[in-house]
Amino acid sequence: MLPNHGRVNIELINTGSELLLGRVLNTHQQWICRRLADLGYVVTRQVAVPDTARDIQQAVREALERAQLVIVTGGLGPTSDDITRDLIAQLLGKKLVRDPGIMAHIEGYFAARQRPMPANNDVQAMVPEGALVLPNPNGTAPGLAMRVGAVGKVPQWLILLPGPPRELRPLFDADVVPLLQREFPLAAAFVCRTFRSAGLGESAVQEKIKAPLEALVAAGLEVGYCARVGQVDVRLTASGAQAASLVQQGGSVVRGLLSANIYGLDDEVMEAVVVGLLTGRHQTLALAESCTGGGLANRITHVPGASAVFLGGLVTYSNAAKQAFAGVRAETLGVHGPVSEAVAREMASGTREKFGADYALAVTGIAGPGGGTPEIPVGTVFIALADASGTVVERRSNVYERALFKELTAQQALEILRRRLISA
Amino acid sequence: MLPNHGRVNIELINTGSELLLGRVLNTHQQWICRRLADLGYVVTRQVAVPDTARDIQQAVREALERAQLVIVTGGLGPTSDDITRDLIAQLLGKKLVRDPGIMAHIEGYFAARQRPMPANNDVQAMVPEGALVLPNPNGTAPGLAMRVGAVGKVPQWLILLPGPPRELRPLFDADVVPLLQREFPLAAAFVCRTFRSAGLGESAVQEKIKAPLEALVAAGLEVGYCARVGQVDVRLTASGAQAASLVQQGGSVVRGLLSANIYGLDDEVMEAVVVGLLTGRHQTLALAESCTGGGLANRITHVPGASAVFLGGLVTYSNAAKQAFAGVRAETLGVHGPVSEAVAREMASGTREKFGADYALAVTGIAGPGGGTPEIPVGTVFIALADASGTVVERRSNVYERALFKELTAQQALEILRRRLISA
Repeated sequence: MLPNHGRVNIELINTGSELLLGRVLNTHQQWICRRLADLGYVVTRQVAVPDTARDIQQAVREALERAQLVIVTGGLGPTSDDITRDLIAQLLGKKLVRDPGIMAHIEGYFAARQRPMPANNDVQAMVPEGALVLPNPNGTAPGLAMRVGAVGKVPQWLILLPGPPRELRPLFDADVVPLLQREFPLAAAFVCRTFRSAGLGESAVQEKIKAPLEALVAAGLEVGYCARVGQVDVRLTASGAQAASLVQQGGSVVRGLLSANIYGLDDEVMEAVVVGLLTGRHQTLALAESCTGGGLANRITHVPGASAVFLGGLVTYSNAAKQAFAGVRAETLGVHGPVSEAVAREMASGTREKFGADYALAVTGIAGPGGGTPEIPVGTVFIALADASGTVVERRSNVYERALFKELTAQQALEILRRRLISA
Repeated sequence: MLPNHGRVNIELINTGSELLLGRVLNTHQQWICRRLADLGYVVTRQVAVPDTARDIQQAVREALERAQLVIVTGGLGPTSDDITRDLIAQLLGKKLVRDPGIMAHIEGYFAARQRPMPANNDVQAMVPEGALVLPNPNGTAPGLAMRVGAVGKVPQWLILLPGPPRELRPLFDADVVPLLQREFPLAAAFVCRTFRSAGLGESAVQEKIKAPLEALVAAGLEVGYCARVGQVDVRLTASGAQAASLVQQGGSVVRGLLSANIYGLDDEVMEAVVVGLLTGRHQTLALAESCTGGGLANRITHVPGASAVFLGGLVTYSNAAKQAFAGVRAETLGVHGPVSEAVAREMASGTREKFGADYALAVTGIAGPGGGTPEIPVGTVFIALADASGTVVERRSNVYERALFKELTAQQALEILRRRLISA
């Protein structure tokens, strides 16, 4: 269920044939929706349409029938497929007039870059009569905001924004947010918090917390679940005078019931949590990866500052590499095979010793599609963690295609290390 | 202007409050639109709505007024915000019936993973009467396809797909594409071919091929460019009786002018091309990574069959690891510093020797944000390739944020190896 804290219906229209041909990801959707949600406003619908007059006008007309605020992105540039400005003026029955301020800005923009101004840029100085111009310091086409009517005391606005993210984002923060807060003040406070959990499936998480949260839900708390690879996010939101209290009480329930399964808040990722825990303890980590093939090291090294705690890793894909670099004994490989508890154990303890690390994580498994046996079927993984107290090994069954198998296994290994770090 | 080869109006509805709260990127939009475009179909509108009954039903009802094919993603899971199945049945006036085949699949899914089946999973076995069940080998909720009517001879279909990409994508290729091609055969032949190039920027690619392709473009060939990390895709499409000939002629021009810069076709990725070349030669590879931190090994090991040619890798984040595992000399580190041509060279030759590999790639660089010097500024990378003939080192300047820096560097390293393999 989508909360409707702001009372204002907001619709987002993204124009651009490249979106519907699948050539680019629509990052505007996530960025604008996220910005608005963090301010307590919620987008009620997002639509992408191609750069054709009929489609753009139809989408805007429909949105204006439902929403108090309609935001349109793209189509304000100088080329032939940039037609949004004209179409909107036409739809609203407004004349386009030339804005000398914009013209001066565009001329200055090219002059500052010592580039001649192509003639077609002057269309960007045309503005539907009465529109507010939202300056674009990072490009030539300004944003445009038009008050198109009102329903009772609630005004209705249509805002056009340039397509390039590096132009849209600063302009949105500088001009759209203040306009929104002035024209559509929030009726009530709004609070949002996400708890990220690992080690439980989506149904299991819901089974644990749903009933205990029911009284708070009846009082206005909203609960959302989102399953990701090896983790489930629980999102608590509320609005009104009780918002902070409801989310705080809900958070206590979630923390109490999911306890150590919660690894982080909001946008935290597992690898950053693990690097943070190691950094706080001044401890170090080394890795030995077989089936994750470097995926675990890749995630750890995505975290800025990882070099302070991460000594290095081995990707021991062959048996020879397991022996030469991780110190696995030939006998162990011969007797147990490379995908075994015994080999995982020796990989972890050998790697810890060779790197001189406080912790070593080792992973060996069988991604498939080939190579399984009745005892060690495809999807089998052994994850070992070595530290000063010894080595433990866990066995998992991750029956998924290759990329997901690697990602899930890496997530499980990080979770095993995180559990050790918070309990140590 | 959006081409409309397929004549069929296709609308995509993505459900999920997390989309409108900006919690996740809508990758379905790009993936599905892209797949359809490559087959000659074009999505005419995409809509995202929250998980609320009113919004989902309204969006589906509106789409069915405009489109012959409506694809809805998400909301088929087991939890309380997964309401799409029920709402669609209600909207179409269909009863939900329990499908024993799906129930057996769900039970088997949990059994294979040795996990108990939570009770709420059985809602996923409920199916609107008469719907086609599209099996989901990677999850519990199947896709559902319903013929909801016809306009003249053109049928109208509504297809519901599970939200997780790892479930949706294989299911889409296995079941939705054949259904689409059967129910909505293209009015005219449609041919699409993508050439993937490395080593040239987007403008450079366009400068080489734009003019020579003009006559074919005048005859109906469409040319699209897409810049990605370390590569530029050139997409040739045509429809009608001359489609195959136009794309074939265009392909000859592109191949002739971009020649060795073309590393693959359509969806081929660089790591798969490199693994394929090594496999064909029965040669082996080892890696030593500093700044890419396992990203290169991770890509190589994404390729099924990589274990036949990939012996292993070292992630030598610390100086001690560079010495102990890759055989870099303390003196070299002391004199030249870890980010230097000399260290890259010793990392590659030492790693090749220690693994006994035919080729070794080594990468050392400085991702930043800290640590740069006037001689070795942030973004500097040294990539070394060792083989039986010796070791070569290339220097690059990749001034990007951390994740992009790693990805681009890995791509450049693979391209250096690919060039050697095709010229050897």
